[in-house]
Amino acid sequence: MYTEKVMDHFQHPRNVGEIENASGVGTVGNAKCGDIMRIYLDIDDNQIIRDVKFKTFGCGAAVATSSMATEMVKGKSVQEAMEVTNKAVMEALDGLPPVKVHCSLLAEEAIHAALWDYAEKH
Amino acid sequence: MYTEKVMDHFQHPRNVGEIENASGVGTVGNAKCGDIMRIYLDIDDNQIIRDVKFKTFGCGAAVATSSMATEMVKGKSVQEAMEVTNKAVMEALDGLPPVKVHCSLLAEEAIHAALWDYAEKH
Ligand code: FES
Repeated sequence: MYTEKVMDHFQHPRNVGEIENASGVGTVGNAKCGDIMRIYLDIDDNQIIRDVKFKTFGCGAAVATSSMATEMVKGKSVQEAMEVTNKAVMEALDGLPPVKVHCSLLAEEAIHAALWDYAEKH
Repeated sequence: MYTEKVMDHFQHPRNVGEIENASGVGTVGNAKCGDIMRIYLDIDDNQIIRDVKFKTFGCGAAVATSSMATEMVKGKSVQEAMEVTNKAVMEALDGLPPVKVHCSLLAEEAIHAALWDYAEKH
């Protein structure tokens, strides 16, 4: 049912945690399953994402997509991070079952919310 | 949104893992969210549950209820374990939000499936 990459990122999630005094924080909820996700961004003066962490109450698919999505935005500029789509994250994981696609939206939405939070503060 | 007990069992889940040569194994899926759960039982000659482990791809609510449910059946007889309901597990966790009740069913169903598997073999 799940690809090797999904299982790898589910069992060994990257970037789990919090960032104190983060440059931007995004919290989103999933209406379909009631799960929540929070993403913390540490962005330097050149608008490069130096560090990123996430926390979620979501399922394995939410964990795996957040793990992959945070890896994909780390080291990128704010502009580049805005362009990392949910579709690109799923492709990087070699796909997700259709019933789990809504879980992957949490990561994309939380990153956008955190970038928005950063933009508002700067 | 979540009680202290739910957060405790989500962040420090008890009995995660597998049991080799288990006396009974139960695997169930949740049609509502597509998540899966597996429970392993180690049952001695007096039909007492000596050990129990679980693995799930489910969300935090599934993790917390499985953690609590496995604690509740450990050391019990097969007969007593059959009577541990989803409702009792949710009460022991001081409740779950309505949108997450379906997640808690995974643990009860997987325990029943594992007890059934054990019964078939004996
Ligand atoms: S949403 Fe699937 S187990 Fe909770």
